[in-house]
Amino acid sequence: MFRSTVGSLAALNFARMGHEVELYEYREDLRKQEYYPHGRSINLALSARGRKALAAVGLEQEVLSTAIPMRGRMLHNLRGQTSVVLYDPCHNQCLYSVGRKQINELLLNACDKFPNISCHFEHKLVGANINEGQLEFRLLPEQQPLEVQADLIVGCDGAFSSLRQQLVRTPGFNYSQEYINTGYLELCIPAKHGEFQMPPNYLHIWPRDSFMMIALPNQDKSFTVTLSMPFEKFAEIKTHEQLLDFFRLNFVDTLPLIGQEQLIKDFFKTRPQHLVSIKCQPYHYQDKALILGDAAHAMVPYYGQGMNTGMEDLTLLCSILDQQLPLDVSLAQFTEQRWPDAHAICDLAMYNYVEMRDLTKRLSFRCRKWLDTMLFRLFPTKWVPLYNSVSFSSMPYSQCILNRQWQDRVLGKALNITLFTGALAGIAGAFYIRRFR
Amino acid sequence: MFRSTVGSLAALNFARMGHEVELYEYREDLRKQEYYPHGRSINLALSARGRKALAAVGLEQEVLSTAIPMRGRMLHNLRGQTSVVLYDPCHNQCLYSVGRKQINELLLNACDKFPNISCHFEHKLVGANINEGQLEFRLLPEQQPLEVQADLIVGCDGAFSSLRQQLVRTPGFNYSQEYINTGYLELCIPAKHGEFQMPPNYLHIWPRDSFMMIALPNQDKSFTVTLSMPFEKFAEIKTHEQLLDFFRLNFVDTLPLIGQEQLIKDFFKTRPQHLVSIKCQPYHYQDKALILGDAAHAMVPYYGQGMNTGMEDLTLLCSILDQQLPLDVSLAQFTEQRWPDAHAICDLAMYNYVEMRDLTKRLSFRCRKWLDTMLFRLFPTKWVPLYNSVSFSSMPYSQCILNRQWQDRVLGKALNITLFTGALAGIAGAFYIRRFR
Repeated sequence: MFRSTVGSLAALNFARMGHEVELYEYREDLRKQEYYPHGRSINLALSARGRKALAAVGLEQEVLSTAIPMRGRMLHNLRGQTSVVLYDPCHNQCLYSVGRKQINELLLNACDKFPNISCHFEHKLVGANINEGQLEFRLLPEQQPLEVQADLIVGCDGAFSSLRQQLVRTPGFNYSQEYINTGYLELCIPAKHGEFQMPPNYLHIWPRDSFMMIALPNQDKSFTVTLSMPFEKFAEIKTHEQLLDFFRLNFVDTLPLIGQEQLIKDFFKTRPQHLVSIKCQPYHYQDKALILGDAAHAMVPYYGQGMNTGMEDLTLLCSILDQQLPLDVSLAQFTEQRWPDAHAICDLAMYNYVEMRDLTKRLSFRCRKWLDTMLFRLFPTKWVPLYNSVSFSSMPYSQCILNRQWQDRVLGKALNITLFTGALAGIAGAFYIRRFR
Repeated sequence: MFRSTVGSLAALNFARMGHEVELYEYREDLRKQEYYPHGRSINLALSARGRKALAAVGLEQEVLSTAIPMRGRMLHNLRGQTSVVLYDPCHNQCLYSVGRKQINELLLNACDKFPNISCHFEHKLVGANINEGQLEFRLLPEQQPLEVQADLIVGCDGAFSSLRQQLVRTPGFNYSQEYINTGYLELCIPAKHGEFQMPPNYLHIWPRDSFMMIALPNQDKSFTVTLSMPFEKFAEIKTHEQLLDFFRLNFVDTLPLIGQEQLIKDFFKTRPQHLVSIKCQPYHYQDKALILGDAAHAMVPYYGQGMNTGMEDLTLLCSILDQQLPLDVSLAQFTEQRWPDAHAICDLAMYNYVEMRDLTKRLSFRCRKWLDTMLFRLFPTKWVPLYNSVSFSSMPYSQCILNRQWQDRVLGKALNITLFTGALAGIAGAFYIRRFR
């Protein structure tokens, strides 16, 4: 089973190892679609881990050639004034905004070149007997039944994975799904006269404490805009006028860019969508089944690491499979090594939402960012700031958190020493003045 | 839908309010069963919350008349010597060991007396459309399909609830299932010459740090014995001789009571079972569906509160429904009030496992127990120890935890003051000695 990116990438990796791969997908072949719906997903932000996994199948450069680099965050304040916080002032590393359609087409085209990959679209999974390696499909649109047999079933079928629904019923399978009280809604800043209406090489953020809006550039020179807010706040906006007032107050600079009419149309077209964080463990069942990507670890989209984590699953899995151990041992090893990092990035993604909507505005946050950057410049291998270790390195996610905790302790101590030394100097100074006055 | 205890109790409550109640149960009518399997469940320990809920439908005394009171824990050490820790030395309150079959029969008989309750056994739920209030059953054993319609669907269908599986798919439904790395296995100490082989009025515990065994008395004068251990430790016992050695080392006094042959037979008959802790929120879906009991909050069995919590769900639910608010408002209020307490008792049950297998043996635990008892005797309404507030009061579970945290703080401060006063006295004494020696 596969759903777009991680599924096709998994197929490519397995095919390169010489396995026969059958890919089953519920939807139709996206390459045949006239109109590809923007869907309900924030654009994909590709960073180091995804790049590494793409490089392993020889596709990194091809993907990057269609992507738009984002060098930092461009913050928009209430008056529409902007300021820039670069992601990596030291080494100029970037995130890349990639179109979901482009990357998936590219991966599917790559799959087509392997004689040992067969793609089956419009196959809906309706049942599975994991123990027997059996999958039961219905072929759309006529619903003919089809039963297939596999040595290993790999589910890359997204946050609401059907295969995971089978695993959830097996004893010992730990699982949690946590919805946050924040809804999101997609808007669009279209291209104007064939050009971007805002500087394209940034991730634009309108941080507003309890809510925020972000915008990522698209290849067609539009921006996909995502408004994230508590559901109660969405519910308060009932009329066109309330919506315009809300935008005049909070996102005044975007009104002429989105256009009032389009804003009203898009805002009231759909209800705000839920966001869920999913953790589970193990990811495998004996040597019979495995889940990867969002099926194994769905996260809120605020670190832009969802796709990168899914792709990195394959980097780890392949390195383990290369050791040629028995399959059940390999899969158990994959679970054991992967879950602490997958859980860590789910937590980090939740934290980054707070950072984006609230902290980025604060002086203390900017001071720390400045200090981190300075230390990073001085000690490029020793002092890697959290954001950089997550987005621009392959440091295990759980290690990124430990690393940050270590940095917090060091800075805490340094602050104490500074205060203590300052206080001592002050006392000594006072004493000196008193003695010699 | 109902599965035994909480389901029948819910039916009784709804019927008393004047509603038409249709009860659907997967299994056959247990009153028709010749042999009622002990199943995979620890005996039911009835305490204050369950008693209160039974009293509300006029069944408390009838249930108690068939129950065996347990006044405290009887601890068995490695040499088979026993000591007693009473649950409530101040007021002599007890837990009651009740037979699952007895209580369920009694509740079903009570249901039969209501013309507005209809019971349907051997109905297997295979599908549900919650929005439409539709349930799809298969009638066993011939599997005829049956579709029924309900204004409100109430799922009391246990830890692996089918109705909850529908709710898990609705956006905004938070859910977690957590398996602990402990398996359990049931053994039996049979009656001998028609008598109990151990003192019956105790919950017997063999605490062994990382594992433990417990025994609860049954009406037929046998004890149901439950061995809880990490799965790895179970896996180490492969041969009959290893099993007997393990028992000689750890539970020497039980060997003659269980009997070597029976022990070997029962131990190797089944694999150790998993234990799961399930939390979710909300418990309702609009005014269409509601889950109660283990379906809403399954816990590890170490506080003996599983059934009591399920029954208490109904005490709260009825008090809310009595206010005659619109049903969706009532159900939302039930969720809002219930989930913090349900999550709290799930956590407490996890904690009590540590207490039972490890802490009960420790001197510090016994000192604290003694101190708690003394303070409880002095201030019976102000200083209710944790165990007593959980088992012998209706204090909300989350409040029980806060109450215990408050007690910890008070004792911590008292200890500090004692140490400080002691130190001061010591210094003063030393000074006095020095001055006057």
